Amino acid sequence: MSTLPKLAKTPEPPYYAVIFSSQRTEGDNGYRQMGERVVELGSQQPGFLGVESVRGTDGFGITVSYGTSDQAIAAWKAKIEHLAAQEKGKQKWYEHYELRVAKVKRAYAKRAA
Amino acid sequence: MSTLPKLAKTPEPPYYAVIFSSQRTEGDNGYRQMGERVVELGSQQPGFLGVESVRGTDGFGITVSYGTSDQAIAAWKAKIEHLAAQEKGKQKWYEHYELRVAKVKRAYAKRAA
Repeated sequence: MSTLPKLAKTPEPPYYAVIFSSQRTEGDNGYRQMGERVVELGSQQPGFLGVESVRGTDGFGITVSYGTSDQAIAAWKAKIEHLAAQEKGKQKWYEHYELRVAKVKRAYAKRAA
Repeated sequence: MSTLPKLAKTPEPPYYAVIFSSQRTEGDNGYRQMGERVVELGSQQPGFLGVESVRGTDGFGITVSYGTSDQAIAAWKAKIEHLAAQEKGKQKWYEHYELRVAKVKRAYAKRAA
């Protein structure tokens, strides 16, 4: 995951974003491997635009995925949920989370020169 | 900022989100103080719903602010820009950033029991 650029290169709006905010449980429990698989799945997804992700030392993290359409994001979300369901019962990755699907209407950037 | 709950308690969609993704420059340069002022301004803003923020040890961070309307968020954004403009020339906080204004259409949560 560290080879991806930190800031997603998104086109002019409109496009779609999934904002995933979560508090991790303690220990890895196969989480890192799952994270890599999610990004891999995302980048293979038609309409995938990019992903931005950060997690603090206290286990709280935000991941934002971008896609060209609501449908592209819904398909990815379904795959993630399927993957998570397969693992369910074996481990518990999150204390709590919130997943929000949003339509990006405007964007402003300051890029490094 | 650490006294705020990590996950924002947002209502049923629709509502609005500002996604601010940024790469920090090295050193604090008054940044922490600015961050506290921004959250303070936000929480005083009519229509403010909450904020979620995380920055990794590598300086990359994502802050998502939520508001009841596009207008509430625009007003806050104007205040932040005014504050940032006052400081401009004195220091440089970001290598680069991207600010995206989005309308949240759907949300799913898993809360701690």
